Amino acid sequence: MSTKPRIVVLGAGYAGMMTTKKLMKNLSPEEAEIILVNKHNYHYQTTWLHEVAAGTINQNQARIMISDIISPNRVRLIYDTVVEIVKDENRIVLENSELTYDYLVISLGYETNTFGIEGMQEHAFFIENFESCQLIREHMEYQFAKYKNDPDADESSLTILVGGGGFTGIEFVGELVEKVPKLCRKYDIDRGKAKIINVEASPTILPGFDKNLVAYARKSLQERGAEIREGARIKKCTEEGFFVGDDNELIKAGTIVWTGGVTGNSILGKSGFELTKGKVTVNSDLRAPGYENIFILGDCAWVMNKVENRPYPPTAQAAMQHASTCGNNIKALLNQEPLEDFVFSDKGTVASLGVTDGMGTIFSGTKLFGKTAAAMKKVVDDRYLFLLGGPKLFLKKGKVRPF
Amino acid sequence: MSTKPRIVVLGAGYAGMMTTKKLMKNLSPEEAEIILVNKHNYHYQTTWLHEVAAGTINQNQARIMISDIISPNRVRLIYDTVVEIVKDENRIVLENSELTYDYLVISLGYETNTFGIEGMQEHAFFIENFESCQLIREHMEYQFAKYKNDPDADESSLTILVGGGGFTGIEFVGELVEKVPKLCRKYDIDRGKAKIINVEASPTILPGFDKNLVAYARKSLQERGAEIREGARIKKCTEEGFFVGDDNELIKAGTIVWTGGVTGNSILGKSGFELTKGKVTVNSDLRAPGYENIFILGDCAWVMNKVENRPYPPTAQAAMQHASTCGNNIKALLNQEPLEDFVFSDKGTVASLGVTDGMGTIFSGTKLFGKTAAAMKKVVDDRYLFLLGGPKLFLKKGKVRPF
Repeated sequence: MSTKPRIVVLGAGYAGMMTTKKLMKNLSPEEAEIILVNKHNYHYQTTWLHEVAAGTINQNQARIMISDIISPNRVRLIYDTVVEIVKDENRIVLENSELTYDYLVISLGYETNTFGIEGMQEHAFFIENFESCQLIREHMEYQFAKYKNDPDADESSLTILVGGGGFTGIEFVGELVEKVPKLCRKYDIDRGKAKIINVEASPTILPGFDKNLVAYARKSLQERGAEIREGARIKKCTEEGFFVGDDNELIKAGTIVWTGGVTGNSILGKSGFELTKGKVTVNSDLRAPGYENIFILGDCAWVMNKVENRPYPPTAQAAMQHASTCGNNIKALLNQEPLEDFVFSDKGTVASLGVTDGMGTIFSGTKLFGKTAAAMKKVVDDRYLFLLGGPKLFLKKGKVRPF
Repeated sequence: MSTKPRIVVLGAGYAGMMTTKKLMKNLSPEEAEIILVNKHNYHYQTTWLHEVAAGTINQNQARIMISDIISPNRVRLIYDTVVEIVKDENRIVLENSELTYDYLVISLGYETNTFGIEGMQEHAFFIENFESCQLIREHMEYQFAKYKNDPDADESSLTILVGGGGFTGIEFVGELVEKVPKLCRKYDIDRGKAKIINVEASPTILPGFDKNLVAYARKSLQERGAEIREGARIKKCTEEGFFVGDDNELIKAGTIVWTGGVTGNSILGKSGFELTKGKVTVNSDLRAPGYENIFILGDCAWVMNKVENRPYPPTAQAAMQHASTCGNNIKALLNQEPLEDFVFSDKGTVASLGVTDGMGTIFSGTKLFGKTAAAMKKVVDDRYLFLLGGPKLFLKKGKVRPF
C-alpha cells in the first residue's frame, strides 16, 4: 500500500499544467503521487482562443495533447469533469468516479460572466473554451454560406457583433478584420456588406490601457473596416442583435459574441467556497482561507496587489507565476518548511491586432506598436510553449519558426 | 454599325463553355459576334460538386474564372441571370438588361427535381450549384461544432442523410465516408456517433449500372461505415429527417441532402418551350423543334438514342459532345451548309468512391474497380480541364499532377 501523500491538480490550463510540471521537478516519484484531472485529453492555449474563434489559426496549433507534455508514467491523468469538491472530506466528485486528496490545487479556469444582461446567455456565443470557439468559427462561416443561398437574405446576417472591448474582444476583432475579407472572397460577397462591430460600455475600448495604445488599436481596427462603438451600454441581447444606449438602438447581426466579462469556475460556488465576484480571495501563499491543503490558482483566484489594494488582473502570465509559487509551497508543506508569498513580476502586456499588428507594453512600461508588437506577442506565445514542452513543442506548435 | 450575326450562349457550364470555345475556333472575329451570358464570373465543375459539398476538395480547385479561359476581347462576357427567353422576338430578358440574338444556344443546366416529395424542397439541401454545395459543407460542419457545445444534443444531429442512390448520391457518399472521420477527429466525437445513410427507392443503388459494379460500390461504402438502404421509398421529408417505407419509419438526421433527381432549367418552361419531364426533346441537329436558330444543349435537352428509343443520359460527357456538334452546326448555318446530326460516342462512365476508390466502365464495357478506377476518374476530370484551358489550366487545377 502506498502511503505517499496524494496531490490532485484540477484543470489543465496554464496554471494546472505549469503546477504539474513544477511538482514533477520539485518532487521525486517517491515523495508524492500526482494526479491531474481535466475534462479533455488536451490542453489548449486560452490566449489563442480568439484566433480559433475567428478561424485564423489551424485549430490544432492551439491545442496540445496533455500526455505529450506530462508523462502518464509519472502523473496519473484522469480525463473527467469535476462535479463537486467536498472540501471538508478531502474528496472530489467527478462525473465518472471519485477521488480523495491530501493536497489540492484548484485551477479550473474561467467562465463567461454576462453580468445579467438580458438574453446574453441565450443568444450570444462566448470565447470560453476550445469547443465554444470552434462553434463561433463555424457559425460565422455558415452565415456567409447561407447568405449566398437565400435570395431574400438580410445583409445584417453577415454582421459580426462583438460585445465588450476589453483585451479578448479587441484581439478577436483584430482577427476578424483579417478573416472577414477572406470569407467575402470565398463566398463572392462584397466586403462592404459584412460588418464587424465592437460595442463597449466604457468611454473607451481597452479600459485600463495607456491612452496612446488605445488610440493606436482603435485606429488600426477602424482603418481595416471595424466599427468601434464606445460608451455604448448593451441593454438587451436578442436573437436579432444588441439593443444599446438610452434610445435602445437595435444593432442587428448574424453572429453575436460576448467577450465582456469572466468569472471563476462555478464549481467554486457549488463547493461552498466564499466568493468575491465569482472568485476566491486567496491568502498570500495562494491557499484558500481556512484550508491548509487547498491552493486556488489562475482565473479562479483573486490575488491581492497589496501595494495598490486591488487584485492583479487575471492573465496567463499571472497563472503561470501562481503555478511556480504553488509548486514550491506544496514542496514546503511536505517538508514542513515555511511557505513563500506570491509576488507578481509584471513582464508587460501585448495585445495582437491580427497577424501583423499589435500594441502593448513590455518591461517597465516600454510601449510597442505595429509589427514589433505583433512579433513580440508571438515571442510571448512561443516562450510559453518552450516553458511547457521544451524545444520540441516550440518547434511543433510555435508561431515564429526559426527556420 | 456592326452587321455581323450575333450568337448568344446562355450558361457557362460544360456545354456553354465548350460551345463558346468551339465557336471561337470555327469562326473568325469578322464572321460573328459571340456573347456568353452566365450568372457568375466563374465556371464550376458540376461533376466535382459532390466534393465541394463534402468539403474534400479545395473549393477553388473546382471553379475557374471564365475570363481565364475565354478572352473578353474575343467574346463579350455578361454576368447576369436569365429571366426569360422571348423566342418569337429573338430576345432575352436578363435581370439587369436585355439582349437580342441571331443564333441562340441554351445551355442553362439542371435544377433539382424533388418529384413532389412532400417537404423535400423546404428541408433538404441540393447538390445543385457551387453555392448550394458550399452551404452543405458548412451546414454539416456546423452540426458537429454545435453537437460539442450542447450537453443535451441528440446524436442524430450528426447523421448525414442522402436521398437518392444514383450517380451523384453515391459519389457524395463516397466523399462522406472520408470526410466524416476527419470531422469526428476535429471535434473529438466518436466515429460511431456520426452516421451516413443513403436511401434509394429502387431495389438497388445505381440503377442502370452493371450488377458487379453496383455490388462493388455498395461493399466499399458499407465497409467504410455508410448505411445503404435500398428499396426504401421516401414518403415525406421534414425538418427531422425522412419518413420511409410502408411503415413510415423516421430516419432522423441533422443534415439532409437530396440527390434523387434533376430536370432542365425552369427558364425553358417560363419561355414557353414544350417540355418532356422538364427538358426539351431536340431535333437530331440539337435545335429546338420549330426554331431554326435555337440550339438546346446539355441538361436542358433530351437527345434521343434512336437505336434504343430512349434519351441519352444527361452527363458532362454528352454535354461536351453536344457543344462540338452545336459549334459545327452554327458555322454551317452561317455558311448555308447542311447541318450534322448529333452522334453520341460513349467513352464509358467512372464513378469515384472517395479519393482512392471508384468503379465504372471504359471503352466498350471494360470494367474498372478500386484504385485503377479512382485514377481513371481523375484522368477524366483532367482531360476536361485540358480540353477547356490547355496545359496551363490542367497544371493549375488538375487532380493528377505530373510532378
